[in-house]
Amino acid sequence: MKFDVAVIGGGPAGLSASIFATRAGLKTICFERLAVGGQASLSYDIANYPGYKNISGIELTQKMFKQAQEVGTEFVYENVLTINEIKNGFSVKTNKGSYQAKKLIIASGTVSRKLGLNEEKYIGKGISYCASCDGNFFKGKHVAIVGGGDTAFEYVEYMSRLATKVYLLNRSETFRANSFRVENAKKLKNVKILTNARVAKLIGEDTLTTIEINHNNQKKKLDVQGLFVAIGHEPQLNFLNFELKTKNGYIIVDKHMQTSKINVYACGDIIEKHFKQIITACADGAIAGNSCIEG
Amino acid sequence: MKFDVAVIGGGPAGLSASIFATRAGLKTICFERLAVGGQASLSYDIANYPGYKNISGIELTQKMFKQAQEVGTEFVYENVLTINEIKNGFSVKTNKGSYQAKKLIIASGTVSRKLGLNEEKYIGKGISYCASCDGNFFKGKHVAIVGGGDTAFEYVEYMSRLATKVYLLNRSETFRANSFRVENAKKLKNVKILTNARVAKLIGEDTLTTIEINHNNQKKKLDVQGLFVAIGHEPQLNFLNFELKTKNGYIIVDKHMQTSKINVYACGDIIEKHFKQIITACADGAIAGNSCIEG
Repeated sequence: MKFDVAVIGGGPAGLSASIFATRAGLKTICFERLAVGGQASLSYDIANYPGYKNISGIELTQKMFKQAQEVGTEFVYENVLTINEIKNGFSVKTNKGSYQAKKLIIASGTVSRKLGLNEEKYIGKGISYCASCDGNFFKGKHVAIVGGGDTAFEYVEYMSRLATKVYLLNRSETFRANSFRVENAKKLKNVKILTNARVAKLIGEDTLTTIEINHNNQKKKLDVQGLFVAIGHEPQLNFLNFELKTKNGYIIVDKHMQTSKINVYACGDIIEKHFKQIITACADGAIAGNSCIEG
Repeated sequence: MKFDVAVIGGGPAGLSASIFATRAGLKTICFERLAVGGQASLSYDIANYPGYKNISGIELTQKMFKQAQEVGTEFVYENVLTINEIKNGFSVKTNKGSYQAKKLIIASGTVSRKLGLNEEKYIGKGISYCASCDGNFFKGKHVAIVGGGDTAFEYVEYMSRLATKVYLLNRSETFRANSFRVENAKKLKNVKILTNARVAKLIGEDTLTTIEINHNNQKKKLDVQGLFVAIGHEPQLNFLNFELKTKNGYIIVDKHMQTSKINVYACGDIIEKHFKQIITACADGAIAGNSCIEG
């Protein structure tokens, strides 16, 4: 099958790119490995997407998905393994098949960064990267959240309604999060915010029961049954069989979202930029989709 | 009154900037001369804003407005006459008062370009720049639309349901509009598309009754009671009492939406860029609002 445009990733950037490319009359295929929505779908409450006062990430991205589907984007739920350059385009090889497209839009986003401890042992048994996904398992229990950004504070707010005790552990003195969120978290009675705090050890036989932390250079133990890790993300770009200019693993693009290679565009969290929001991912996607019209 | 941020213009870019700046804890005031929504509010059917399959411009921008209002942006319905640099900020003078702010976000957008004929005589008497505003006056009549972009074709579609006959007059052979819209317009039975066609003369005693056009270098008369002009826009920037780097009247910004002057940001249709859509205006606004946090 030969397409005009192959979009890699079905998060907000990829969905927006699909909408704009398809509406421009380009035969567009969008590859998504899991479920559409990307990292945005893990947000239980989005308040800064202009046009929606409050909406869950799942609801918002489902709306974008249906919009793309309705204009005619073809969706394929397969894992992209490799992408090769071929004559007049690119070949996308997935776990199930092979597809060809003249142009490529990379919107593969990021995945959650790990603590670097033996957290694999406890994934699904106390460790989670998504409060809105797993929070309900810790109803009436004690949990800790690691991080200092918007996501960490969103998790704090969310878990404060479910858990009896919520610790926020931030590595430094200052927070990257929006001041609104920080102030809101400080008002919550069952929330304790610890700065200069790092997780040193995960403890528990089968499931997590305790964490050892380093707080102001002192060792402490906290009895928590749940630990939510929200310390950032890492770019997903291991499927490319050709070189693109990157910085710290993120793709460098120009104002048309074009990468260092002609006919390859990138958008969303995978690109090198300062301010990563759903609204900016969607705008990047719109520009990338539109850029595919020319040439 | 001293504010952290003054946003000039209440279209999508200004509203998004207001939402992001206010949510970041900055005391923000937004100036709008007429009604919030900007040029976007003239669109009767927006199909490419990710998250809304179909929505009118008024509805979408009203949602953004309420969102900004709810987070705490202060709105002032006054005409900005001049902006001057003062110590530690800027002074905004309107037709009613004077305001001070540390930082400035210019989101003043554009206004419709004129034909350059004696169209002032017929404004409100046959000539219009907004089909969704004035279309209803031409029910059962003949109208012409001038232009070849998305707006022109949106007007064609809209007016084809109201008028008995709709002419689309495009200066050149090709259209700037999305191919979807062009193909849709060609299918409409009461629509006639004329390329290489220019309006040469407006005719009518009190109200417009006829236009003279130049079609493939031949003079022709068309009996139309309504003429919708959709030939582009011009930047609105006559209130600045200091210099900013511009190109063809549009403000040049960097990736943080900063202009050539420190603490002055710009976003939306007023900036120099390639692809102007509501989604990109909102993303620009988000970046501009966020940039005001630093420094």
